[in-house]
Amino acid sequence: MLLVAPQNYTFDSPLELDCGRRLKEVNLRFETVGTLSPNRDNAVLVTHALSGDAHVCGFHSTDDSKPGWWDEMVGPGKYLDTNRYFVICANVPGGCSGSTGPRSIDPDTGKPYNLNFPVITIRDMVRAEKRLIDHLGIGRLLAVVGGSMGGMQAMEWSIMYPEAVAGIIPIATTCQLSPQSIAFDWVGREAIEYDPNWKSGDYDAEHTPDRGLATARMLAHITYLSDESMSRKFGRELQDKDTYSFNFRRDFAVESYLEHQGQRFVERFDANSYFYITRAMDYFDMAEPYGGDLARAFSAAKSDFLVVSFTSDWLFPSSESRKIVKALLANKIKVSFSEITSGYGHDAFLLEVDALGRLIRDFLSNLSEKEHANNG
Amino acid sequence: MLLVAPQNYTFDSPLELDCGRRLKEVNLRFETVGTLSPNRDNAVLVTHALSGDAHVCGFHSTDDSKPGWWDEMVGPGKYLDTNRYFVICANVPGGCSGSTGPRSIDPDTGKPYNLNFPVITIRDMVRAEKRLIDHLGIGRLLAVVGGSMGGMQAMEWSIMYPEAVAGIIPIATTCQLSPQSIAFDWVGREAIEYDPNWKSGDYDAEHTPDRGLATARMLAHITYLSDESMSRKFGRELQDKDTYSFNFRRDFAVESYLEHQGQRFVERFDANSYFYITRAMDYFDMAEPYGGDLARAFSAAKSDFLVVSFTSDWLFPSSESRKIVKALLANKIKVSFSEITSGYGHDAFLLEVDALGRLIRDFLSNLSEKEHANNG
Repeated sequence: MLLVAPQNYTFDSPLELDCGRRLKEVNLRFETVGTLSPNRDNAVLVTHALSGDAHVCGFHSTDDSKPGWWDEMVGPGKYLDTNRYFVICANVPGGCSGSTGPRSIDPDTGKPYNLNFPVITIRDMVRAEKRLIDHLGIGRLLAVVGGSMGGMQAMEWSIMYPEAVAGIIPIATTCQLSPQSIAFDWVGREAIEYDPNWKSGDYDAEHTPDRGLATARMLAHITYLSDESMSRKFGRELQDKDTYSFNFRRDFAVESYLEHQGQRFVERFDANSYFYITRAMDYFDMAEPYGGDLARAFSAAKSDFLVVSFTSDWLFPSSESRKIVKALLANKIKVSFSEITSGYGHDAFLLEVDALGRLIRDFLSNLSEKEHANNG
Repeated sequence: MLLVAPQNYTFDSPLELDCGRRLKEVNLRFETVGTLSPNRDNAVLVTHALSGDAHVCGFHSTDDSKPGWWDEMVGPGKYLDTNRYFVICANVPGGCSGSTGPRSIDPDTGKPYNLNFPVITIRDMVRAEKRLIDHLGIGRLLAVVGGSMGGMQAMEWSIMYPEAVAGIIPIATTCQLSPQSIAFDWVGREAIEYDPNWKSGDYDAEHTPDRGLATARMLAHITYLSDESMSRKFGRELQDKDTYSFNFRRDFAVESYLEHQGQRFVERFDANSYFYITRAMDYFDMAEPYGGDLARAFSAAKSDFLVVSFTSDWLFPSSESRKIVKALLANKIKVSFSEITSGYGHDAFLLEVDALGRLIRDFLSNLSEKEHANNG
């Protein structure tokens, strides 16, 4: 059993943010697995998605029933092999799993920030991650790897700190959130806002807007699956009955599943963080500062890329990855692109472990050799 | 200006329903346009979608600012030409636009049914429509034409009353609701249930669950559009501003548009009807009574079919229409199938008027000739 201890890094100075405000006190919750090599050249930063956290693999204690969120991928002898690489994962600022976020205490008021917390961008997340990497004494990461929102962070690393990372692995992601995704985020937040417990974000810990948050999660969850995976997994099967009940309670297995997903989510996630993290994704548009020209956006990038998409992902479809690849090629950046055939929809980045894992393993291995050759 | 008067048909006996209950008192609100031919062989029933009503075309009064919902398609000299055909459209039972529905008075209690209203199925809607057609003295319809939920009704007509209709035009529809659509319906109803005004459906007329209903509508509205149409219509454009506001109010044009759609919807639609009509669609599965064999389901059908789908419709994609066509062909039924190239998503059935209209016009014209030949 791989035991991993959560760690904290409290910044020694404020974090300046894209919105023009600054966070006075910042803590990043992070975990590391594996051993940093004497040359400090084997560090891989894993960046998490919307509902992820720093606990990427292993267990916090022998009593834990579930391992970290990417345990099938990351660990000793696994595709992202912690016998070989030093893996770092940090909860993003704005999150609710140990890092400073909207439910943290505002040092100016002594009360939780709630919606007074500054709006965070993907670039702000990357700025915070860079501070952590500096703190760990790592001058250059071997790679940044992440799916969905994690992929957004990975890509920003390549242009914000081009010298500080050898390889970038954006998985099932996009370089700008589509209006359809912005719309889904909007409806999810509306559902939370209409929860009577919401109180404009000033809910108390005993009466959280669980119903609204569960509704938002159920909606988002539909977008993470595919029509195909839902048909295969549930079809039109009824839950614990043979015929329609002719009422509005749960009849279908898919309804029961969604309700369960919603309930599970509210036990581990905070409604205000849901606001901040979805907004960070809404605002994500790498081309915008370059007049809409994505190729220009990547002009500073120097890392090698492995871009991965999944055939049934309709949230961040393969066409989005192809745009990224095209922009990279325009800059003569070395990029491998793989579209993995999968029926799992967007969730494939967590479920297609073998197909994805082999790509990551080989890319990192080649990258590692290249880095040694360059430094040798 | 085409003026059309709403009419009412109150049944002279109860309506037996699939759920095993009966509706004692049933009124159908309907409208007709054009003139029934002496042979009574030019009647076309238009069946409406989720949020539609009996007001298919024209105006109720000279003061009306907006015509009926399919006015571009239906009217004198239009594709569905009321100079030639006698067009009938009725609000479905369970609706909220004149026909008996959950907000009607239960004769047993003297109070609104609300959630005591029996659950209605698509077949129940068709049973009610057949009563109306009988009442109008029409033995055989030239055609039943409808998009989305209207298409479901049209297909049921072909197997419930095979002798009573010459042609069936199901547009942008499916023969069984997918788990993905069931899931979206579920989340929409959850959003309504969590509105404090909901009161388990017993809301009073002055305090309706508008917020929940608006959220449900916004969600559904996303599924009626396509990623392509949203990108073309809104992209990532901001609404009345040049830069992000770094808060959670409306920033993007797509957010503003959705909010507007939600607001408009609650002005004309009832939350309880939303429950009943979405549930009718959830329960729609033509193959289920035939052991899942759609070909067997259509074995009683005798009508000619025109099946139409749209390339960017991801709610009821072309693959669903192809299933219908395949099942019809297995029964040697005469079927034309057209997949119209359109970026409008599911809403294309209301927007691609010319491409769709030509198909409908020609199909009806051929059908009309065939009927005359058979009767001549």
